[in-house]
Amino acid sequence: MVSERVQGLLERMSLEEKLAQIVGFWVDEGGDVVAPMQGEMASSAKLEDATRHGLGHFTRVYGTRPVDPIERAQWLWEAQRTLVNQPGPGIPALVHEECLTGLAAWKAATFPTPLAWGAAFHPELVEEMGVAIGESMRTLGIHQGLAPVLDVIRDARWGRVEECIAEDPYVVGTIATAYVRGLQSTGVHATLKHFVGYSNSRAGRNLAPVHAGPREVADVLLPPFEMAVLDGKVRSVMHSYSEIDGIPVAADRRLLTDLLRGTWGFDGTVVADYFGVAFLQALHGVAGDLGEAAGKALEAGVDIELPTGNAYLEPLAEKIRAGLVDEALVDLACTRALQQKEELGLLDETFESEPPTSVDLDSPEHRRIALQLAEESVVLLANDGVLPLTSPAKVAVIGPNADRSEALFGCYSFANHVLAHHADVEMGFEAPSVLSALREELSGADITFTQGCEVEGEDTSGFDAAVAAASAADVAIVVAGDQAGLFGRGTSGEGNDADSLELPGVQRQLVEAVQATGTPVVLVLLTGRPYAVDWAFEKGAVVQGFFPGEEGGAAVAGILSGRVNPSGRLPITLPRSAGAQPYSYLHPQLGGSSQVSSLPTEPVLAFGHGLSYTTFTHTGLTVADEVAAGDTFTATVTVSNTGDRDGEDVVQLYARDVVGSVTRPVAQLLGYQRVRLAAGETATVTFTVPTTRLAFSDRDMVKIVEPGAVELWVGPSVATKETEAALTLTGDVHRVSLDDNRWVTTTVERD
Amino acid sequence: MVSERVQGLLERMSLEEKLAQIVGFWVDEGGDVVAPMQGEMASSAKLEDATRHGLGHFTRVYGTRPVDPIERAQWLWEAQRTLVNQPGPGIPALVHEECLTGLAAWKAATFPTPLAWGAAFHPELVEEMGVAIGESMRTLGIHQGLAPVLDVIRDARWGRVEECIAEDPYVVGTIATAYVRGLQSTGVHATLKHFVGYSNSRAGRNLAPVHAGPREVADVLLPPFEMAVLDGKVRSVMHSYSEIDGIPVAADRRLLTDLLRGTWGFDGTVVADYFGVAFLQALHGVAGDLGEAAGKALEAGVDIELPTGNAYLEPLAEKIRAGLVDEALVDLACTRALQQKEELGLLDETFESEPPTSVDLDSPEHRRIALQLAEESVVLLANDGVLPLTSPAKVAVIGPNADRSEALFGCYSFANHVLAHHADVEMGFEAPSVLSALREELSGADITFTQGCEVEGEDTSGFDAAVAAASAADVAIVVAGDQAGLFGRGTSGEGNDADSLELPGVQRQLVEAVQATGTPVVLVLLTGRPYAVDWAFEKGAVVQGFFPGEEGGAAVAGILSGRVNPSGRLPITLPRSAGAQPYSYLHPQLGGSSQVSSLPTEPVLAFGHGLSYTTFTHTGLTVADEVAAGDTFTATVTVSNTGDRDGEDVVQLYARDVVGSVTRPVAQLLGYQRVRLAAGETATVTFTVPTTRLAFSDRDMVKIVEPGAVELWVGPSVATKETEAALTLTGDVHRVSLDDNRWVTTTVERD
Repeated sequence: MVSERVQGLLERMSLEEKLAQIVGFWVDEGGDVVAPMQGEMASSAKLEDATRHGLGHFTRVYGTRPVDPIERAQWLWEAQRTLVNQPGPGIPALVHEECLTGLAAWKAATFPTPLAWGAAFHPELVEEMGVAIGESMRTLGIHQGLAPVLDVIRDARWGRVEECIAEDPYVVGTIATAYVRGLQSTGVHATLKHFVGYSNSRAGRNLAPVHAGPREVADVLLPPFEMAVLDGKVRSVMHSYSEIDGIPVAADRRLLTDLLRGTWGFDGTVVADYFGVAFLQALHGVAGDLGEAAGKALEAGVDIELPTGNAYLEPLAEKIRAGLVDEALVDLACTRALQQKEELGLLDETFESEPPTSVDLDSPEHRRIALQLAEESVVLLANDGVLPLTSPAKVAVIGPNADRSEALFGCYSFANHVLAHHADVEMGFEAPSVLSALREELSGADITFTQGCEVEGEDTSGFDAAVAAASAADVAIVVAGDQAGLFGRGTSGEGNDADSLELPGVQRQLVEAVQATGTPVVLVLLTGRPYAVDWAFEKGAVVQGFFPGEEGGAAVAGILSGRVNPSGRLPITLPRSAGAQPYSYLHPQLGGSSQVSSLPTEPVLAFGHGLSYTTFTHTGLTVADEVAAGDTFTATVTVSNTGDRDGEDVVQLYARDVVGSVTRPVAQLLGYQRVRLAAGETATVTFTVPTTRLAFSDRDMVKIVEPGAVELWVGPSVATKETEAALTLTGDVHRVSLDDNRWVTTTVERD
Repeated sequence: MVSERVQGLLERMSLEEKLAQIVGFWVDEGGDVVAPMQGEMASSAKLEDATRHGLGHFTRVYGTRPVDPIERAQWLWEAQRTLVNQPGPGIPALVHEECLTGLAAWKAATFPTPLAWGAAFHPELVEEMGVAIGESMRTLGIHQGLAPVLDVIRDARWGRVEECIAEDPYVVGTIATAYVRGLQSTGVHATLKHFVGYSNSRAGRNLAPVHAGPREVADVLLPPFEMAVLDGKVRSVMHSYSEIDGIPVAADRRLLTDLLRGTWGFDGTVVADYFGVAFLQALHGVAGDLGEAAGKALEAGVDIELPTGNAYLEPLAEKIRAGLVDEALVDLACTRALQQKEELGLLDETFESEPPTSVDLDSPEHRRIALQLAEESVVLLANDGVLPLTSPAKVAVIGPNADRSEALFGCYSFANHVLAHHADVEMGFEAPSVLSALREELSGADITFTQGCEVEGEDTSGFDAAVAAASAADVAIVVAGDQAGLFGRGTSGEGNDADSLELPGVQRQLVEAVQATGTPVVLVLLTGRPYAVDWAFEKGAVVQGFFPGEEGGAAVAGILSGRVNPSGRLPITLPRSAGAQPYSYLHPQLGGSSQVSSLPTEPVLAFGHGLSYTTFTHTGLTVADEVAAGDTFTATVTVSNTGDRDGEDVVQLYARDVVGSVTRPVAQLLGYQRVRLAAGETATVTFTVPTTRLAFSDRDMVKIVEPGAVELWVGPSVATKETEAALTLTGDVHRVSLDDNRWVTTTVERD
């Protein structure tokens, strides 16, 4: 329902004033490149010109220049007052900012990347992080955050894998929805990115076409968005740059309007990914000019063009005046924009209050959350017993990611997004590198550092020193991996796709040279994607961190020393090679390597894998024999810490629908639960599972739960059936409705 | 219309007799593995038991054992007489055989692989080959050939790329239809493989799921089949093993019945790919048992289960008796099986005539066609001037593919399909290796041979001898590449997928070692897929043969000596790496590497590329300014041989639809014409192009031609616009009908 107030505003607004409400203005546009084709797309408009008729959004006021947040807040309050007080409707701008790994502002806390959230399998903690981020944003007058990313990982080559949570839609949905709840609980609106398909681009190339059928879209790519809309009550959605099977999402009314609003009942705003409307003309070629592109986007259901829309406003206005685009489309988008401002209280905001004069964007509470999430997200991939370290006297720390704080951060961190372009500017907060943290953690040890090589490039001149250091040490810790960045700056992140899944540069050679010394080697990976590192498993240990954030150094050091027991699990399959991509554990049967293809189909390490310093067993999986399709069943399993250390397990319940009317994956995660168990402790975990978790789209694209046999198992990863049970779904085919429960709930009862 | 005769037969047949007509019997089943999962699928039925009620097909009577064709013909005639004379309807079996690169029988001619047909861009010659193959088959009592393959190449990693013609649907359609016409002109029925989607499997893994939307299927994968059905009047179609977006084709009535029969009017038989019906249960999991699988396949529109169906006949009969499968489905499939036999004259055949007592399956006419097709298919990828060879005194021939006839053949050649398992059996016909042919071609030269390495494996012990030989020679010819085979035997062919596109084994190292000697190097590739060989272009020349068949050695030798001027063109893009797959030149705009992805999007060599010893120019492309959408336009271009040698050019007309209602590829081949031009000669090539060549499926999946601007160009490959023209399609959107012309016709007028 549109309020009288919004209705009244709309009726009094001129076409120019309405158009102004559905675009952004980018204060720092044309600066450092943080969006695709930014250079070509940038306009030269001045603030006064662009806001003459009002303004929809202020774009990235804090996030694209190293400006002090307090200074910038003062500018912002003044700019808002100008908007409120100028002739016309006098509506402030909505202020949006990036906030994927924390608020993207100078000196703000930098949390682990989403891939690390996935590895932690701990939505409640991600919700706490969302609250912390939202509070910082609110303080600075920011109303909307462009996060989280709900793209289900389909190809490890894509540069933005680090921004995604997992290759499993349920893990993505539950964790992203937790982020949404946390952020929105502070009054800041979350934005679902990127609706939909973006992660599924051809060959993992950024913005390449998506080759997917409607069933893959409906059953794999859309479910996380559905959860975040229906259960997370998200207030904004960003369209994907992608085209799916020939239709750009930004021009697809079936997705943006029929599904999102019609079926799911979403009533917030749909915002453009930066320049996404213009790309309908410039990249996709489905519009002949910018005005046509704008008309098509409005028709499809894009409300707000970001980061800036002034380049297309006049062409759009011309189309409207010529009767080629219906002004009602603008009215509708403007109504939604005004409704969002009303909901945010912006229609009553005068900005006569003073902006903040001091803020702590990296409070102790932020750091507590960042540390816990980092600790829970680090995955111990392999361990021949060298870990935990047993008070080594001499430690050689080696590698290009050992002594750099930036190696702890993803591409949407302010440090790698913006500060990387400003070498002279200090980061402004503490983020001890792995080396620094190790010096603190292993304070009794003699620690040397040798870089060995850079992240990229062919320079091996540092190998000799690294080998010498390793040879002289009791243990060598090689910290390798990616540098996150944007569009060719770095090896992971937006625009940094990979056609090889070997470690970048000469890092593998460095590790192998160090291994050849015979000194025990701990390989620590700080990466934005999984790499094909099976060669490193033979000797020593391999620790995988997915850009663990400002407390990531301490988390890694704690795990190496044994102070922290590792408990992260792979949220993405560890691949064999780039040539084996795309890959998802959610595949239907492939036939087996000897029988239909010469190539192995098993990955190096399966989804869900992660070692601990203690041992867990899973026994006695029990379910009812039968449940009616559409109903809910319970599955109980006993998990025991059978080792001599306290630890945390992620209990993973998997299923296979044995026969389907369409093909079904060989395995599917039904539910998961992080459980802390003292040494020797046992607990019973009960999963309450709606059978809708087994739903799929039938041949007519109706989502159903089908009767039939289901295999269930629990194990240390999807690949191992440690305890099994059989279930039969009975009765008629159940047609899924939006009222059906989408969530598995879990209880833990300690014996 | 069903004839009275077939109707009468059907009415008199028992269920068992009808079921017997819709399956095959494989005389040599359980022998050498030539089909996926053959070991698990094989039955132990005896001929007498399996044919008690009659038989639909004899499966691969000649093609899975090294038996003398004359001996086997005698067995066949006797077996057919038994069928005719036994109690019951007395109907002979239809005899089918593989015939992709020639009849798959011992001692039969082995032609170039389909990828070489694509490289020749010469459908008329492929039609001649079809006639030759059909004549051999007819002589031996074979009624149906399981060829050609119309899968449009989507991923160079797939092992069966060698069996496909091209990555362009129009090239596939025109050449495959030519094959169908040739084969069927002899009375032998062709079979379209594999309807549809098979080439588009995930990560290029054989039988892996196909992730494609309906538009990609309709606009890229289906058009070749449509041409071969509507214009080639093919009599049989084989379903694909694949599932597309969750639905196995063998259980997809929309494709096998609604589209193929309903829309296209196909009235022949649909046969199963070997064990494809059983795979509905065993691989796809869309059926709980074999009887259910059989019922689903019949319901979808599979008529005949191959290679053998006796394992499912009893389970199917049980389902029918239990009322779970409608007997009318069996009646329909049996009717079609009988209609095909009637059409082939089998209902009147008594086999009282004697089988042939001598045959020449490798006649001079076969060899002439094989030679011409080989010569026209070899692609000169790069040449620094070393080619053609100028009477070298000392030639070092090196490499694992130099001295082996098998290196000339694809995986469906009898030699690599069957004889590879029988080391003691002679091939039985001449196929001079490249080395043999070079000894003949360069009879005045001192030719040494050193193998250097094997096709596969890590053994470099032969490198020293190879380097020494190269150092002592005026020129080194390294013949490298694949060995075709099946399911892990070899590096290319069915089941031999690749996760790297480097040359197999240590061959690249061998070539680089030889290049390092400073002796000019000619790299000759005999492969079943394109490899990432850009590193070899720097010095010397690179000659690409796609398994050029029994006369391939002579063709390569003739090109190296200069007796033959190379004229093949790449029917598939030469890729950068496996990590850059899948790739097709038919992609929509990608944005450019610096702007959206750090990785280059341009391939190493573009579709259509191929050098000559002379030079061709293309000038003066001329089209009308406007044509109504749905009508036909002409495009004329002048092609000149500006060099001093006679030669053949493949004139390639490309187009880009600038703005579409869905995304359109950045380039699309409209038409092509092979033209022979004497040195200095000029010709005008006129393409008569129906605008339906620009058709695509709109948002409602209706195939249309849309008004708007079209860019046209001619050049030496898709990547170079040597002469350009602009065309505007006018009027209303044209809805394409089956009566619309699908073919570009071409005339060549010499000046």
